[in-house]
Amino acid sequence: MSEPLVYLNSEFLPASQARLQIYDAGFVLGATVTEQTRTFDHRPYRLDDHLDRFFRALHYTSIDIGRSRSELVQFAHTLIENNAALIDPDDELGLIYFATPGEYRTYAPDPVRSAATFCVHTFVLPYEQWAGKLRCGAHLITPSIRHVPPQCIDPKMKYRSRMHFYLAEKEAQLVDTDASALLLDLDGNITETNAANFLMVARGTLMFPTARNTLPGISRMTVIELAAELGIPFVERDIQVFDAINADEVLLSSTPYCLMPVTRINGRTIADGRPGPIYRRLLDAWSRRVGLEIERQILDGATRRKVARDSHATS
Amino acid sequence: MSEPLVYLNSEFLPASQARLQIYDAGFVLGATVTEQTRTFDHRPYRLDDHLDRFFRALHYTSIDIGRSRSELVQFAHTLIENNAALIDPDDELGLIYFATPGEYRTYAPDPVRSAATFCVHTFVLPYEQWAGKLRCGAHLITPSIRHVPPQCIDPKMKYRSRMHFYLAEKEAQLVDTDASALLLDLDGNITETNAANFLMVARGTLMFPTARNTLPGISRMTVIELAAELGIPFVERDIQVFDAINADEVLLSSTPYCLMPVTRINGRTIADGRPGPIYRRLLDAWSRRVGLEIERQILDGATRRKVARDSHATS
Amino acid sequence: MSEPLVYLNSEFLPASQARLQIYDAGFVLGATVTEQTRTFDHRPYRLDDHLDRFFRALHYTSIDIGRSRSELVQFAHTLIENNAALIDPDDELGLIYFATPGEYRTYAPDPVRSAATFCVHTFVLPYEQWAGKLRCGAHLITPSIRHVPPQCIDPKMKYRSRMHFYLAEKEAQLVDTDASALLLDLDGNITETNAANFLMVARGTLMFPTARNTLPGISRMTVIELAAELGIPFVERDIQVFDAINADEVLLSSTPYCLMPVTRINGRTIADGRPGPIYRRLLDAWSRRVGLEIERQILDGATRRKVARDSHATS
Amino acid sequence: MSEPLVYLNSEFLPASQARLQIYDAGFVLGATVTEQTRTFDHRPYRLDDHLDRFFRALHYTSIDIGRSRSELVQFAHTLIENNAALIDPDDELGLIYFATPGEYRTYAPDPVRSAATFCVHTFVLPYEQWAGKLRCGAHLITPSIRHVPPQCIDPKMKYRSRMHFYLAEKEAQLVDTDASALLLDLDGNITETNAANFLMVARGTLMFPTARNTLPGISRMTVIELAAELGIPFVERDIQVFDAINADEVLLSSTPYCLMPVTRINGRTIADGRPGPIYRRLLDAWSRRVGLEIERQILDGATRRKVARDSHATS
Amino acid sequence: MSEPLVYLNSEFLPASQARLQIYDAGFVLGATVTEQTRTFDHRPYRLDDHLDRFFRALHYTSIDIGRSRSELVQFAHTLIENNAALIDPDDELGLIYFATPGEYRTYAPDPVRSAATFCVHTFVLPYEQWAGKLRCGAHLITPSIRHVPPQCIDPKMKYRSRMHFYLAEKEAQLVDTDASALLLDLDGNITETNAANFLMVARGTLMFPTARNTLPGISRMTVIELAAELGIPFVERDIQVFDAINADEVLLSSTPYCLMPVTRINGRTIADGRPGPIYRRLLDAWSRRVGLEIERQILDGATRRKVARDSHATS
Amino acid sequence: MSEPLVYLNSEFLPASQARLQIYDAGFVLGATVTEQTRTFDHRPYRLDDHLDRFFRALHYTSIDIGRSRSELVQFAHTLIENNAALIDPDDELGLIYFATPGEYRTYAPDPVRSAATFCVHTFVLPYEQWAGKLRCGAHLITPSIRHVPPQCIDPKMKYRSRMHFYLAEKEAQLVDTDASALLLDLDGNITETNAANFLMVARGTLMFPTARNTLPGISRMTVIELAAELGIPFVERDIQVFDAINADEVLLSSTPYCLMPVTRINGRTIADGRPGPIYRRLLDAWSRRVGLEIERQILDGATRRKVARDSHATS
Repeated sequence: MSEPLVYLNSEFLPASQARLQIYDAGFVLGATVTEQTRTFDHRPYRLDDHLDRFFRALHYTSIDIGRSRSELVQFAHTLIENNAALIDPDDELGLIYFATPGEYRTYAPDPVRSAATFCVHTFVLPYEQWAGKLRCGAHLITPSIRHVPPQCIDPKMKYRSRMHFYLAEKEAQLVDTDASALLLDLDGNITETNAANFLMVARGTLMFPTARNTLPGISRMTVIELAAELGIPFVERDIQVFDAINADEVLLSSTPYCLMPVTRINGRTIADGRPGPIYRRLLDAWSRRVGLEIERQILDGATRRKVARDSHATS
Repeated sequence: MSEPLVYLNSEFLPASQARLQIYDAGFVLGATVTEQTRTFDHRPYRLDDHLDRFFRALHYTSIDIGRSRSELVQFAHTLIENNAALIDPDDELGLIYFATPGEYRTYAPDPVRSAATFCVHTFVLPYEQWAGKLRCGAHLITPSIRHVPPQCIDPKMKYRSRMHFYLAEKEAQLVDTDASALLLDLDGNITETNAANFLMVARGTLMFPTARNTLPGISRMTVIELAAELGIPFVERDIQVFDAINADEVLLSSTPYCLMPVTRINGRTIADGRPGPIYRRLLDAWSRRVGLEIERQILDGATRRKVARDSHATS
Repeated sequence: MSEPLVYLNSEFLPASQARLQIYDAGFVLGATVTEQTRTFDHRPYRLDDHLDRFFRALHYTSIDIGRSRSELVQFAHTLIENNAALIDPDDELGLIYFATPGEYRTYAPDPVRSAATFCVHTFVLPYEQWAGKLRCGAHLITPSIRHVPPQCIDPKMKYRSRMHFYLAEKEAQLVDTDASALLLDLDGNITETNAANFLMVARGTLMFPTARNTLPGISRMTVIELAAELGIPFVERDIQVFDAINADEVLLSSTPYCLMPVTRINGRTIADGRPGPIYRRLLDAWSRRVGLEIERQILDGATRRKVARDSHATS
Repeated sequence: MSEPLVYLNSEFLPASQARLQIYDAGFVLGATVTEQTRTFDHRPYRLDDHLDRFFRALHYTSIDIGRSRSELVQFAHTLIENNAALIDPDDELGLIYFATPGEYRTYAPDPVRSAATFCVHTFVLPYEQWAGKLRCGAHLITPSIRHVPPQCIDPKMKYRSRMHFYLAEKEAQLVDTDASALLLDLDGNITETNAANFLMVARGTLMFPTARNTLPGISRMTVIELAAELGIPFVERDIQVFDAINADEVLLSSTPYCLMPVTRINGRTIADGRPGPIYRRLLDAWSRRVGLEIERQILDGATRRKVARDSHATS
Repeated sequence: MSEPLVYLNSEFLPASQARLQIYDAGFVLGATVTEQTRTFDHRPYRLDDHLDRFFRALHYTSIDIGRSRSELVQFAHTLIENNAALIDPDDELGLIYFATPGEYRTYAPDPVRSAATFCVHTFVLPYEQWAGKLRCGAHLITPSIRHVPPQCIDPKMKYRSRMHFYLAEKEAQLVDTDASALLLDLDGNITETNAANFLMVARGTLMFPTARNTLPGISRMTVIELAAELGIPFVERDIQVFDAINADEVLLSSTPYCLMPVTRINGRTIADGRPGPIYRRLLDAWSRRVGLEIERQILDGATRRKVARDSHATS
Repeated sequence: MSEPLVYLNSEFLPASQARLQIYDAGFVLGATVTEQTRTFDHRPYRLDDHLDRFFRALHYTSIDIGRSRSELVQFAHTLIENNAALIDPDDELGLIYFATPGEYRTYAPDPVRSAATFCVHTFVLPYEQWAGKLRCGAHLITPSIRHVPPQCIDPKMKYRSRMHFYLAEKEAQLVDTDASALLLDLDGNITETNAANFLMVARGTLMFPTARNTLPGISRMTVIELAAELGIPFVERDIQVFDAINADEVLLSSTPYCLMPVTRINGRTIADGRPGPIYRRLLDAWSRRVGLEIERQILDGATRRKVARDSHATS
């Protein structure tokens, strides 16, 4: 069977050949900026917004990938067209862009610093990782590790120096191997998980942590637009764990799965412990917007794969 | 001509084949721990101390490389034996270990999380990057970007989520393209540069920033031992820029080049602007310890390479 | 004469018999959550809102009092009915709920941890403590002791680990024995006094410290509703001492006395040094809402008691 | 059977009658200072040092208990003499002093503020709570809740506004119901658990957190004296979780049980996971000092009680 | 030629005689509060707003200048009338008020503390310092020195203890001798430059740092009013360097020059690197409001002076 | 009678003519660095150490006074010789150096930035300000205003941007008009007063705040030397108010009066409320070192002046 394509440093390669030098600065320093979108029905979602954010990160870090915005759009279309043909029609692709400053000068065999590393690749959305949590709600744990503050690395840039996320996840999984870490900032305010924006509902209002502490998620932006359409007010403010534990609903928003209900934080149940009505309304509106049942696709897809794996295992 | 060897995930490979998956967690999260030593006369320096520090980082991060300490020593000897044969007798090797948690689960094509990534490789010490600064002293700039605090990622672990180092260097190079960034902590204390420990001499005493804020460098440990032998007292304390600018000498210690004098900070001259006597005494003692003239080797090596490059360019 | 009743751990008792074990965790750790309302004409004010806040604190602390909300309402009515009969018709009752995790395991004679401690009791509003300040305005002092930050104990929960309030009051009383402490947070923002929310008026707008740093007072909520009715805009923001000293009016809101004007801060006079017009408008609107003259009741009550005390002293 | 005595507010009472007003400021504000010692062979240990610390707290808080130091010594002897007669000869007593500012003025029925509350009482050391951990080592978890900083309430005073300890324990017990919380300060340094000082051994040296962040424990002082006798060097410094996880040994010191080995922190094993040699040496020296086998007494006592309980249960 | 007048401590003096004691507290402690406005067509701009702010600072610092508000207005008019007669009709005056507590007691020869020092003086607006930046945009650098936090000295008061501004400027000028320092607060938020408020435009909205961290500039207030007239929305929020570098426009507002475009921050270009449309619209509206072309006056004036200087130099 | 001389900007002037431009940067920005010593028997004390510190501040701030160290020594001798002749033989002189960057460019009439301002002057030590406190001990108050942190302005430089000192004094004087402010740092550690270093004695050891937070006083250095001679151990550490209130002795050290006992902090008495034995021993040793009775000179001098003033008043 054919392999998916990857765009890496000016060429399209089969995925198995898309590999990085061990002395790439992205690996040596974690100095990587990245962007991620996904497809709905094999069409990329809000690619423009994602590329805006990517170019802001490139400008801030002075990484020059030497490619225009329209080229980046074109690479996406080429990869999706090719790679979507290799998957089940009910599967979807995640699409990743990343860039690094290139070779780390001290380790590189050639003392002239090379050009930036730039890559576009895809992955199949892992429905099976989400299905259980969509049904019952996720469990979040606040670890003792704090989020890196903006005066060190600004979280408004999607970057990959995330050792603190890795360490925070380890702590969360001490409590519950299915739990995710919800990182606090240095003042104890809620920020984000390692892969999602945090939002909550209290007294009918959607509340988000401030822009200071979190990635300005495109899914979060979608939620804000949908909330506006549905007449649900929203505010940005500093949120503490006490607020979240007493919220009416808590949600995560993230590009690959869109929205996920949270039903426990630090072992305490949120409201009645079940996915709530605002979650449903937002997800339904989102499904209408993209023309497919988002949760249904994930749940069915997870089942389909499980059947396939089980039949494979017993065959 | 033959290529250097690299040990990667259970095999020895030619360097050009030692490449990483684009979805390795070391790349996706920067969740890499590392260690670095160098050779003197093609023998590794304080390998035991470096491996101690590496195993502390592995224990803290719960990354299980599945290899014993004696295997790690063996890998070093194999690589040095092979790779040193490819270089000039007056060149030396840097030796790098690194480990990551392995594939990042969400992006990886196979949903089973793989084993840790583990690699050992070498590089030729880049004398030409240091020669000028050894002669005249380095210039340090304190950027507005602050070092990541220990409650986010502990600097006592040699890790590779270093976007802040990359950003800090960019700021320093606005002032002087040869300058290095000297990062302050969130309270304004001096910590370290992106590749070296900071030390200074005032009133005859060596002073280091506290262990809280910096990597416990093995070169720093060598300096402390040499200072004890030479009867130079030393202390650890919080140091501010005011102290450094008014110091009698400022030095950097780092595995690849051992010691480097600093003669300017933020454009102000340190003392008389020339490498000082404590620098000389420490470096001489170090040279005696390893049985070769450290600075001489670097300066001569840099000249030798320049000659080679120039003759190559004109040929 | 008959004693007031107290509800304590499943029984109604005469007040003099309502006592706590010296090894109650509320006493050993200060691990107590509490709620307080008052009566107007011997009817409890906003009992629902107070119970909402009480249940949020119980949920956050995982203290299970084993009683339903309707039982708590019933206890309030029983106590008020009984205890109001013992006081002057122009006096009013404060009503306190509190709960603790029960016996502190290490000290308790029986190694099985007991159930939560839960109590409801009343007290007679001490008009004489407020009368002078209602007439002339209170004096606030910012002590050097800072408020406990939310990442240690969240002030949105009404709790009783308040040694810092006690210490802050001691400092304030060095300046003026009638002054109250206005605590600053770790960044120097105004938070609250030990018994009241802080609010100020500048350029016609009511301003409150943010929810992050203060108890979300029910009286504060009443003020916000009254301000909306009266067309007075209000905002939440970080407020510093400089703002307060230059405000047009400064007020305290608190359950027992509703509103109190502040006419001095750190020895500086606020505006013309007299209770201001917004104070009057808010208090008049509040009086209309509850059907009695709030300030009048306090001032007259304080005089009545003084007459009674004096006649008692001379008889 | 006879009851233990308690000294409370000028009288000796049977324990069951020693109860506090619900409006005692120690309960309403947590404004309580306290002291705790224990007996060895029914003689109080370092009573003088404990009373020194108690009087420092009383001076700082301006709580005047109206009793002299020699009276406090006398109360201890009276209580121990009486209460030790009621327990097994192999049991020991904990001895508690506490004081509060007295009645909280607003709630008290009588508007004249009463004198300070002052109490001395005993409890039987709960061997059974410690036996398992002495054998296998305790497990510590760093919660997301941070310790209250000294500029709010100074931890050098033994006080009882400890809601943060209660909340931190709840978090630790999510991971392991037998674990204890090890609180970090606002900068991420290790402080103390809710009932013990933290100490660790690295490279042969005992290390403690600084005095800034922790109670100056009398047991900690004993450890320092014993270490001096045994020739074990010790230092005070800021310690982070990374250090502790990579320590050679970690210990807790606390008045009731003296010393306890820690063998896990955040799920990672400390050294070989067993109580270590420095623990043994220190505890042996301590046992010699007090003339009884401290660990033996606890382990045997716990077994004795279990036998008694079981026989009682089956009788 | 006649000299400008200065009002100093109750008298009008020729400028050359307006000098301060070396032991004035404004000099010994930097304990000076000040205010500054400018003229348009030789009429003072928003004098009332500036005096309001001046009296807030005087009230906060308890400096009593012993002069009424109407006297301060009168002094301004007297100075402008007199001093404007001495300048080119196309030049304008800056007008400065300042006050100090008077003589510093310890150094003063007479042990009785004198009255406050109070002064009003003018200066000619230095068009030539601004012309180049108005044409091409200013360059801002974020130094490692942080702004003094409000809990030390509140920036809402215009005060003169600005050593940090001086040090920050030195750092900025290391990069570019024409650059200005943009100070960050202790959390890394943008505050202000040493002489101007910072504002930026993103997605059509004007954004300012919050009142907490900056002087509430009167020019900033003018911008807000003009924005409201032009239908440009504005918000106050915490702004980080990442935001500024990716803004559509960045501006400075300051009393003497009104508005200045910023086209580079830390070496990165803002948008297309040229003064932007919102700058133009705001400045045009401001010019209409004051009845003269603000930028034109400055550019022409700078040219006129250069011609005069050059002709003087060659004559 | 003749006037004292002042050295100002290259000339010696009578004091009454030594005045500063109102647009000197030292006045406009508080950008002044300074140094202060005093005479004993009309000879300057430790002038070398003071000049060392002065040149460190000049180097850090890049202020170039254009004068050599030997010239500065000469200026001191000239001023003392001249000015001491004008005072009582039992009076002594304070000697002040200060420097500023010169004229503030924007306000100055001439657009060319002038040279640095540099001045040396004297004052008569004001014995009468200290006599009462030497006898009975000073009272220190910790204000809510915090000391400016080193990352804004480093306190190791003697600078004059001290509005926070002025504001802190105002707060302290609310409690007691004779009290001085003892400023805390942002973490609540004790730093210094506006004119003195803080030191305390506990368990026989002298303790100072760390160098991070305070001026490295020359008097403090004298105390350390004297303590070494007397066999009194000393340490630098973070000190909190709790420590100070429970100290055995608290002292201030400052150039003009050398040492002052502190007998109250925040209204609490230190030890027995009287100047203590370590104060006496240190001051006696200091008196021996300088060959005159320091305290006696001050007390007698204060009496002498009072007599003179009284006789003048009644004549």
